[in-house]
Amino acid sequence: MPLVRIDALQGRTDAEMAAIGDGVHRALVEAIGVPKDDRFQVIARHRREELVFDPSYLGIARTAGVVFVQATISAGRTPEQKKALYAAIVRNLASSPGVRPEDVVINLVEVAKENWSFGNGIAQYAT
Amino acid sequence: MPLVRIDALQGRTDAEMAAIGDGVHRALVEAIGVPKDDRFQVIARHRREELVFDPSYLGIARTAGVVFVQATISAGRTPEQKKALYAAIVRNLASSPGVRPEDVVINLVEVAKENWSFGNGIAQYAT
Amino acid sequence: MPLVRIDALQGRTDAEMAAIGDGVHRALVEAIGVPKDDRFQVIARHRREELVFDPSYLGIARTAGVVFVQATISAGRTPEQKKALYAAIVRNLASSPGVRPEDVVINLVEVAKENWSFGNGIAQYAT
Repeated sequence: MPLVRIDALQGRTDAEMAAIGDGVHRALVEAIGVPKDDRFQVIARHRREELVFDPSYLGIARTAGVVFVQATISAGRTPEQKKALYAAIVRNLASSPGVRPEDVVINLVEVAKENWSFGNGIAQYAT
Repeated sequence: MPLVRIDALQGRTDAEMAAIGDGVHRALVEAIGVPKDDRFQVIARHRREELVFDPSYLGIARTAGVVFVQATISAGRTPEQKKALYAAIVRNLASSPGVRPEDVVINLVEVAKENWSFGNGIAQYAT
Repeated sequence: MPLVRIDALQGRTDAEMAAIGDGVHRALVEAIGVPKDDRFQVIARHRREELVFDPSYLGIARTAGVVFVQATISAGRTPEQKKALYAAIVRNLASSPGVRPEDVVINLVEVAKENWSFGNGIAQYAT
């Protein structure tokens, strides 16, 4: 169910981006109960001019290691679950590939259950 | 009204991507009444490492021919209309350029009518 | 709080894209009260085949100078504030780098306050 867009700078290697994708997905599984094989991600790296971030908004020091994670998920998670998700993403990415917690910017977009089709033109989650 | 992001792998040709864009748009017109000339799409192709998909989630066998379609549309469609949209996208893409139905992953994001401006800084759909 | 995706054609220079990013952000600050240093943007340029737009939908004449602005923001703005935002974006981009008002296509995606984390795995806006 999640469709996750991950954006970072070109300095990050393929191995780092793979670890980031893995860590984000494991967090979704651990924190909000996403099925383990429900993984769909679009990963992109950008030149410095094309990934714009404030280096100190809210007093958080961001660097060129910044990672944007925008996850579209089904609605229905509580604020507590969302908080657990953010904490898990940051913990996983700090563990591997070693992203600074300050550098992880996360946004969730919520949609209805019937807003997904995982193949064959069927709305597999519709009730 | 729809803003559609289509992501696939680099193996697909320009002609295939054009056919995919056409087929998605025709499905929006046929199934949920989008005006014929209301077409806005961002099409991107990715290296294998940067488009992550599970090859069997929900028992559906996905291949390197996978296509992600994320369409932002105005809210208000019924679940039945959304189901008709998914079926139409898959049917059109199977017809041309020949995308396997299993390879079509679709997500809808819904927004309010006043969340669009199609030029001139005017909210053309606001009531 | 906004996460803004800006898409244009490859003909636009880095300087133009920077001016567009600046103008969009200033509009968010001016029109809907976004904090000045709350700026997060993903900017991308595309080949002509990969940025699809109708050249006359709703009677608005769009050219290769077209700019798509998709901004994810917290919910709660009134339709009037959204209209002021569209007008401000178009005004700023016309001023610099000189984007035609007809060429600015805008979409807003709204999310809950707790759907953001700006670093450290904390939901800074959650109540």
